[in-house]
Amino acid sequence: MHTVNSKCVLVVGGGFVGMNAVKILSRKKNLKITVVDRCNHHLFQPLLYQVAAAGLSPAEIAVPIRSLLSDKSNVRVVQDEIKNVNPAERVVLGKNGKYSYDYLILAAGATHNYFGNEDWEINAPGLKTLSQATEIRRRIMTVFEKAEIEEDAEERKKLLTFVVVGGGPTGVELAGAIGEMTRFTLARDFRSIDPKLTRIILVEAGPRILSGFHEVLSSMATRDLESLGVQVWTESPVSKISSDAVTVGSEKISSATVLWAAGVKASSIGDSMKVDLDQQGRIKVKKDLSLPGYKEVFVAGDQACFIDKNGESLPSIAPVAMQQGKHIARNILDELNSKPRKPFSYLDKGQMATIGRKRAIVEVRGFRFGGFIAWVAWLFIHIFYLSGFKNRIVVLVQWAYSYFSFARGARLIIDRNWRSFGKGKQNQ
Amino acid sequence: MHTVNSKCVLVVGGGFVGMNAVKILSRKKNLKITVVDRCNHHLFQPLLYQVAAAGLSPAEIAVPIRSLLSDKSNVRVVQDEIKNVNPAERVVLGKNGKYSYDYLILAAGATHNYFGNEDWEINAPGLKTLSQATEIRRRIMTVFEKAEIEEDAEERKKLLTFVVVGGGPTGVELAGAIGEMTRFTLARDFRSIDPKLTRIILVEAGPRILSGFHEVLSSMATRDLESLGVQVWTESPVSKISSDAVTVGSEKISSATVLWAAGVKASSIGDSMKVDLDQQGRIKVKKDLSLPGYKEVFVAGDQACFIDKNGESLPSIAPVAMQQGKHIARNILDELNSKPRKPFSYLDKGQMATIGRKRAIVEVRGFRFGGFIAWVAWLFIHIFYLSGFKNRIVVLVQWAYSYFSFARGARLIIDRNWRSFGKGKQNQ
Repeated sequence: MHTVNSKCVLVVGGGFVGMNAVKILSRKKNLKITVVDRCNHHLFQPLLYQVAAAGLSPAEIAVPIRSLLSDKSNVRVVQDEIKNVNPAERVVLGKNGKYSYDYLILAAGATHNYFGNEDWEINAPGLKTLSQATEIRRRIMTVFEKAEIEEDAEERKKLLTFVVVGGGPTGVELAGAIGEMTRFTLARDFRSIDPKLTRIILVEAGPRILSGFHEVLSSMATRDLESLGVQVWTESPVSKISSDAVTVGSEKISSATVLWAAGVKASSIGDSMKVDLDQQGRIKVKKDLSLPGYKEVFVAGDQACFIDKNGESLPSIAPVAMQQGKHIARNILDELNSKPRKPFSYLDKGQMATIGRKRAIVEVRGFRFGGFIAWVAWLFIHIFYLSGFKNRIVVLVQWAYSYFSFARGARLIIDRNWRSFGKGKQNQ
Repeated sequence: MHTVNSKCVLVVGGGFVGMNAVKILSRKKNLKITVVDRCNHHLFQPLLYQVAAAGLSPAEIAVPIRSLLSDKSNVRVVQDEIKNVNPAERVVLGKNGKYSYDYLILAAGATHNYFGNEDWEINAPGLKTLSQATEIRRRIMTVFEKAEIEEDAEERKKLLTFVVVGGGPTGVELAGAIGEMTRFTLARDFRSIDPKLTRIILVEAGPRILSGFHEVLSSMATRDLESLGVQVWTESPVSKISSDAVTVGSEKISSATVLWAAGVKASSIGDSMKVDLDQQGRIKVKKDLSLPGYKEVFVAGDQACFIDKNGESLPSIAPVAMQQGKHIARNILDELNSKPRKPFSYLDKGQMATIGRKRAIVEVRGFRFGGFIAWVAWLFIHIFYLSGFKNRIVVLVQWAYSYFSFARGARLIIDRNWRSFGKGKQNQ
């Protein structure tokens, strides 16, 4: 058999799936690989909450996709937003261009899910992009500045009330980071207000937070959050969000800062295709992660619904995406060498969540632990997986400094309106 | 004589004047000091161009004013924008509050001067704030992404043409940093375009760049810029700027990225007062930096016009601001101890500018040198003066890394529109 020359692989999404796939695929020099992403950077999403809580700077958790791949001469990187996939014609349509392929890896990730209340976003931003993280940081830091000069007690209370909606890992990590910041970092910075009196409420519709973890760890995390001043309200579905209040059941909480961590849905690219989607808009895939009917199209990461051997869909977490990206790449290389594809199976390396500065919970194959040891494990795993050598060192320095001094280096309020002479503010 | 109790000192502006004054004033525990700034951070402005050129992250050159002053219990920090100063009634009016004082230190800095063409700003942002620096970074990085997928040669050329208006230190440093980035950092990152072919034009209305330096250093800097691919056009006043071109004399240059470094004017607070201003809107001050007629009001830094013993006004540079801030503080403390005020005199420690990654020019009391040694001197002085212990270390790590690898860690494009579901883009 002849070897097939110059096959084109198109990778949509420069996240964990895309980067892990390209790393392996690029070794085969006669493959032409194109990576398309609407951002210019690969983002280490598990630490995004640290940017929102002013613990890290954007550049510490994001690296330009180009510079990650600059030494791979058969890889081209394009910044574009994909609008439509036409698997029948093997064409992908972006805002700026049209891309054809022999193989397609679709991994455009997920966005928030406001479950039909998309108008809530303006008052309750979610946390998926760097832009959103810096917006949340701006809001958090600004309310303290406003509270410091506010003379009305009611108004001040509203400014110093944070509501985080959603008790999954993101909500827990965000609430914990805000709690830690108010209890320690900001404690001595103000004269009129006492940041330690900040009310932080984590609101969860279900019966417990971190429902993906064992109950023991849920209650461990609840206690850890409480020790940082975070109140955990379970069985508390949100019915309304306005610019100065959240309604939870029949209660109305005055709050100037509401953050949304209640749900995600897959990128809308799936909607443009005539394919089976699950409830979260994820594309249902076969055992080899390919799209039913289209052997040359793979879908993975947060955008894919993969049913594992227990009959359950895999969660939207980084390890799943990384393993799927590698698996797809190996299957493509095998196929080009006339070897059969292998079905994907997820090797569960456990899951973890962190609460504040020195506590975490870890669950590895039935083995569960929390506290400081779990936090150290969390720390090393996250630094180990951070892309790019420099970032690891800078993040380590930053964290070490932050750990020993309780300071927060990135506590900047950067105005969204950059103009000195322009009319109209862009800030909300 | 009785000692005077609980005098109030109001400091407008958390820049070099303000921080240096407060450091000394806060030692006197019965003084009540209030620092008002419209930003929440003290900015190390001499390195702002590094943020614009993606060499450093915002948090590496900015520290929250609060955290710089948190251990000084007699200092209060307020984020507010000052609109009006009424020295007759000793009252300062802000957007959010009213402030009275026994002593006022007015040092609100400067903004750009478009010399009546303020509408140029949208197409030619200046570089005075973090918000402007990240906007310029976004624009610079975006044109390369667009050029990579642009098929029209004319359009591509326009995208890869940068015009920096103004040949002072900021313009020179910015143009040099862009030159270095295109010649080294980005060189291997693109497939369709060659960033080394980027055209960078530094446009100066006067007969030479860096007119504040000796002619020998101007031509040294010109040669250094040229070796980084920057063309220096002197005697070239700009007559028009549109979204895709700059008109210089009778020539029209197609360019998607125009940056403004052509002039500054003092903060408009001076306009609200019935005082003598110079051509740049700076308030004319007496020998002790006080406002004529108002012994208790001091004006300093970029906002003050101080005529030195040679009959010339001092330049708008950081060392002047630092020395003035300290001098005012010492005079206030002396006066409270019934000692007479001393006139200010500037101790010229020299001036420097850097060009790219390993060249600079230095001028110290008639002694002039350039090249690598000058760059090392520049590097150490800037790191030494960077506020905040952590920042010094992080900047050093960052620079060392950047120096040895030619990489740029902060090459991020962060969308100004953070909303996933909002209508209307805020980007230009």
